Amino acid sequence: MTAPAGVLYLVPNTLDFGIAGTPADLRELLPGSAIRIAAGLGHWICENAKTTRAFLKRVDAVVPLHRPLQEISIRELARPAKGRPPAEVERAAAAADLLEPIRAGADMGLLSEAGLPGLADPGAVVVEAAHRAAIRVVALPGASSIALAVSASGLNGQSFAFIGYLPVEAVARAARIRELEALSRRERQTQVVIETPYRNQALLDALVAHLQPGTSLSVSVGLTTAAELTRSQSVSGWRSRPSRLPADVPAVFSILAR
Amino acid sequence: MTAPAGVLYLVPNTLDFGIAGTPADLRELLPGSAIRIAAGLGHWICENAKTTRAFLKRVDAVVPLHRPLQEISIRELARPAKGRPPAEVERAAAAADLLEPIRAGADMGLLSEAGLPGLADPGAVVVEAAHRAAIRVVALPGASSIALAVSASGLNGQSFAFIGYLPVEAVARAARIRELEALSRRERQTQVVIETPYRNQALLDALVAHLQPGTSLSVSVGLTTAAELTRSQSVSGWRSRPSRLPADVPAVFSILAR
Repeated sequence: MTAPAGVLYLVPNTLDFGIAGTPADLRELLPGSAIRIAAGLGHWICENAKTTRAFLKRVDAVVPLHRPLQEISIRELARPAKGRPPAEVERAAAAADLLEPIRAGADMGLLSEAGLPGLADPGAVVVEAAHRAAIRVVALPGASSIALAVSASGLNGQSFAFIGYLPVEAVARAARIRELEALSRRERQTQVVIETPYRNQALLDALVAHLQPGTSLSVSVGLTTAAELTRSQSVSGWRSRPSRLPADVPAVFSILAR
Repeated sequence: MTAPAGVLYLVPNTLDFGIAGTPADLRELLPGSAIRIAAGLGHWICENAKTTRAFLKRVDAVVPLHRPLQEISIRELARPAKGRPPAEVERAAAAADLLEPIRAGADMGLLSEAGLPGLADPGAVVVEAAHRAAIRVVALPGASSIALAVSASGLNGQSFAFIGYLPVEAVARAARIRELEALSRRERQTQVVIETPYRNQALLDALVAHLQPGTSLSVSVGLTTAAELTRSQSVSGWRSRPSRLPADVPAVFSILAR
């Protein structure tokens, strides 16, 4: 099999998605190589074409795009239809189709709504399809809120697990919290979870209610933005000094049983 | 307790530690905010003062340091003495001592040899001490090779665990590989491990020997450098098309049982 000539670039996005106010100069938040390569790409795969165009305008403000925005191809990842999630094989075929420009020799970019593509987002199916087609995959340097949160937590960064979302339903969520705490204790492993911003407070309340008093709990909100704040203390500390979390800024929660 | 006035900045390092050749312009690899803030810091905590000075020279080449390098305080994290690892309480006390300049009102930087401080390095003890002293901790944006490798693997990025190093001894290593594969299957979770570069090939050989043929194995070497390469395929694919890994470039190994 001859490798296709084009490259799939995994382009980091900033972590300020949904944060109100004027967006920061992209050079403050992303390395130069990521911005420069992004400015040259004529083909994109993303979750949302509108926010991808907004990202490309931020790129253009610091490194002029090589062609007008209207001439750049932006294709969205298929969203699962309600009621009938697509079979694995259909998702893989759709992802392979999206990579067609690479087989024709063009480079492509894969972009997430925030942070790195394929982490806590549906982009991995495209990366998997690229490997299957022997397409060269290059991850451009950029921040992941998950990795930054573990770094800022002061909890165990020699062993940590990103779990994603917890169940929303209260009984199932409490059970899953206790399960993760037991796993953290057994493996001495930091457990990292996220939540939709409007449920930040509800998740914090559930963690503080169901974890053991001696367990460490760290919460990072608004990483890399002006609103950045990391608070890291024992659950008993959270109980005696409760916090209100913002409902419009992404948060990352890290747990380490002691 | 009044919060100290100084801030502990977690400063990302590049991922090209130990890579031969002229180092790239720092602006290519790190966001502007990280470089700008690093240029202003007069107090550093690090693993190695010599490589920290080399980092600060790279900063100075693009944003002049606010004071001469000789006037910048650089203190190394205590290394465990051979034979008698320090007790938890001693390590915590030593880390708290390192933060003294913050109590006097100065900002400080914490730097790793590569990537984010506290991930796969001993820096977390300093971050933990900062939180205990109510010091504000700010994680500046930068890349983690662990997060980039998961992104580039195309494996499950909705649930992944960084495990660190595997045992070096062959029987213990084989057992741990099978244990991680079972965990990956049960939790549908990508398991990520690293190795000292000169043992890259030995670890790859062990993974290919002991994992099931249908398990996916991804290897990223030299992320963000000219040597960057990610190969992601089933173990049976690795068996039929063996690879030689470089012995002088960091690698990250990701496993997902199918």
